[in-house]
Amino acid sequence: MNNESRKIKINKLVNNILESYKNESCILPHETCPMPNRDIIIEIATTLRMVLFPGYFDKHTCNKEIMEYHTGELIINIHQKLTEQIIFALSLEAVRSNGTSEEICRKDTVIDDSVDLSFKFLSMIPKIREYLSTDVQAALEGDPAASSIDEIIFSYPGIFAITMHRIAHELYLLNIPLIPRVLSEYSHSITGIDINAGAEIGKYFFIDHGTGVVIGETTIIGDRVKIYQGVTLGALSTRGGQGLRGVKRHPNIENGVTIYSGASVFGGKTVIGEGVTIGSNAFITESVPSGTKVSIKNPELIFKNGKPRELDQNYSDV
Amino acid sequence: MNNESRKIKINKLVNNILESYKNESCILPHETCPMPNRDIIIEIATTLRMVLFPGYFDKHTCNKEIMEYHTGELIINIHQKLTEQIIFALSLEAVRSNGTSEEICRKDTVIDDSVDLSFKFLSMIPKIREYLSTDVQAALEGDPAASSIDEIIFSYPGIFAITMHRIAHELYLLNIPLIPRVLSEYSHSITGIDINAGAEIGKYFFIDHGTGVVIGETTIIGDRVKIYQGVTLGALSTRGGQGLRGVKRHPNIENGVTIYSGASVFGGKTVIGEGVTIGSNAFITESVPSGTKVSIKNPELIFKNGKPRELDQNYSDV
Amino acid sequence: MNNESRKIKINKLVNNILESYKNESCILPHETCPMPNRDIIIEIATTLRMVLFPGYFDKHTCNKEIMEYHTGELIINIHQKLTEQIIFALSLEAVRSNGTSEEICRKDTVIDDSVDLSFKFLSMIPKIREYLSTDVQAALEGDPAASSIDEIIFSYPGIFAITMHRIAHELYLLNIPLIPRVLSEYSHSITGIDINAGAEIGKYFFIDHGTGVVIGETTIIGDRVKIYQGVTLGALSTRGGQGLRGVKRHPNIENGVTIYSGASVFGGKTVIGEGVTIGSNAFITESVPSGTKVSIKNPELIFKNGKPRELDQNYSDV
Repeated sequence: MNNESRKIKINKLVNNILESYKNESCILPHETCPMPNRDIIIEIATTLRMVLFPGYFDKHTCNKEIMEYHTGELIINIHQKLTEQIIFALSLEAVRSNGTSEEICRKDTVIDDSVDLSFKFLSMIPKIREYLSTDVQAALEGDPAASSIDEIIFSYPGIFAITMHRIAHELYLLNIPLIPRVLSEYSHSITGIDINAGAEIGKYFFIDHGTGVVIGETTIIGDRVKIYQGVTLGALSTRGGQGLRGVKRHPNIENGVTIYSGASVFGGKTVIGEGVTIGSNAFITESVPSGTKVSIKNPELIFKNGKPRELDQNYSDV
Repeated sequence: MNNESRKIKINKLVNNILESYKNESCILPHETCPMPNRDIIIEIATTLRMVLFPGYFDKHTCNKEIMEYHTGELIINIHQKLTEQIIFALSLEAVRSNGTSEEICRKDTVIDDSVDLSFKFLSMIPKIREYLSTDVQAALEGDPAASSIDEIIFSYPGIFAITMHRIAHELYLLNIPLIPRVLSEYSHSITGIDINAGAEIGKYFFIDHGTGVVIGETTIIGDRVKIYQGVTLGALSTRGGQGLRGVKRHPNIENGVTIYSGASVFGGKTVIGEGVTIGSNAFITESVPSGTKVSIKNPELIFKNGKPRELDQNYSDV
Repeated sequence: MNNESRKIKINKLVNNILESYKNESCILPHETCPMPNRDIIIEIATTLRMVLFPGYFDKHTCNKEIMEYHTGELIINIHQKLTEQIIFALSLEAVRSNGTSEEICRKDTVIDDSVDLSFKFLSMIPKIREYLSTDVQAALEGDPAASSIDEIIFSYPGIFAITMHRIAHELYLLNIPLIPRVLSEYSHSITGIDINAGAEIGKYFFIDHGTGVVIGETTIIGDRVKIYQGVTLGALSTRGGQGLRGVKRHPNIENGVTIYSGASVFGGKTVIGEGVTIGSNAFITESVPSGTKVSIKNPELIFKNGKPRELDQNYSDV
């Protein structure tokens, strides 16, 4: 293929794609303001983690002399970027609901609201740190494989997930659109733990292993709750789709509950009482009174003396 | 340890490693052509996502004036890189199967074929966009926690997974080796959703939460199908290993089917009929007629009044 | 808001955060030495993967002439960075357990130990390669969807996970703190496969799909074992928390065992004998003799002729 025919082919391709931009209008951006940027939102969360766990995720050693300047620098950086992303998110929401094409993102009210929301969020950092500190202690207390607080902060997916959730939840409470969900799904992608930003979660929360955990938007969780991999706190049915928005669809889990791997608890009226233990793979759709241990009769095992898989097979010629 | 003895140790280490390169020949590259590059393949997919969802994943604002130039630039970039990776993938396959050491990757036929395959793939972009547009609508329709189309495109793992799958599947249909699987496993790594590039998937496809979903190579899925976390569409047995290559091993799922969390459907002769609903944790190895709701009797719960976990324990001295 | 009032607000924020650093002392770094750095530990593992699979993850073509220089360069790079991270990890551990504030990380003994540990680890590379070579062969043998050894090395999450595990396990055996767990959790984050660095795993190990797999710290696995997504090799109870540290809590899996998706095996005294096959979703807390096939009676299915989900609903106005 010579250069000329290649160029013609490319032109044709591009025109077909531009044509398709007219047809699938549902997946087009609005054009009047910049769109929020997923990478920058994640960058903000990463910088926030440095502030929440000083010295753990920085490139250089933290000591008291530089801590003040360093923290100040990080906060100014977060405040600027977060304000900007809130402006874009609010503008996007306004354009989508009004259908107007005026330059919403340059309006003073949107900018002032965004500066204000950004400050309100940042003032929650000490509270978030207070909660995270209890989560780290719960992980050390609950996991025999944990050898230090440092190991937990550096590497535990449950700590990463609850860190991102506590950030996302504060943004959610401020009714900031889009950004909380981007953070939740970023955390889901890193940890396999899917916590909707709307969920309310108490102190000393520990998720062990975590892959496959799902915690729905209207879930309320008390203090000292411990959850294992594959646990779902879900809705009985989402057949109602958008008609169910805002309805309480997910359970309440009271203080001191432990839920083992693969168990599911469904329904907005379901309350798991204080101190309950729920065994692996239990499937629960009704409330459980305080102090109960719930388990299932595990499915009966069937044993056969099958011929074992060949062990002397020759792999060497593969 | 002084520098001299350190140098001697390093030399010995390196020699032992080079020696081991002679022994484990199965994990050695071929030397005649460059190998495909995983990072560049992922870069191509990331750029493709910008074309498929214009304005959402770009750094700058999209408006009609620059859209044509911008799209053209992205397409030229994708075409060049994709052609090159196809050359390397075809060459690698040829060397592996022929065992020849001639410079296959510089042959005109390989290069011409690759340019052609790259163009064929790119011509599918409008079709991919058409399908993705229906997937986004299905997510909005099906999830009460979704608050806008923008949120879905920016953050939903189900949309990321189906985007990567629709790209990978077109490359798979063109018999391009290696690249489709690299993309599928990249998407698996980001989302926890494992869709083999061979699977055929209709319009309005929605995966909610998604972690742990497995969809096998020979699965065929109709339109308006909805799947939750932990669902497996799998093969009854893979004991046959390579002897089963190309055999239909995975089920057909017809239009309008919903499959709830943790359910499994196995077998190449299994057909789940139109409009079927499959309940959580059902384990299905035979066909289900249209319009049926299948559920399992959930395992009976055993309740004991156990002593609840101590709630007043002192964490503060940890 | 003008600049002055913004500056005052920022100052107040920063002071509140610095104040909170005094309260949640459990999440503060030590100040005397640099902390280990998660990003650099992951960089070391990524470079190690280039050495273990020469030519697959490099940017340029590998051929015999440059292989020696290239490998030497990579090893020197790994040795330097790994030694430094071991110094920081040992120092952190020492400070945490002694509570002393002397400059442990500059002590000659810590430095000498770290250089030595780094060399000891690097000398295991040929052995790791020998094991990984069998893992790649097991993947090709066991998966009908695998089309080449190259595809497996480039893209299989099971291979990524076992590569990181074999690295982490050697570091664990050398009693290096923190670094093994950081690597395990990095691998968990990429693959959804959670293998504690303490687990002992034989040759020809294959994990298919893998999302949700959990393998506990004191698990011992023989040769030619095959495991599917969602399998847990876990502890019966971790209620004992830190009191259980070092106790054998997880099962032994002997040669030639296959464990299908979603099955769980619990307990430190549980032994799954040679050649056993364990069916999907089985829940096992006692030993199984060699050669047995264990399965469960799948939960009975309940069929209802429900009204199928509306298929003609109009999505177009969404």
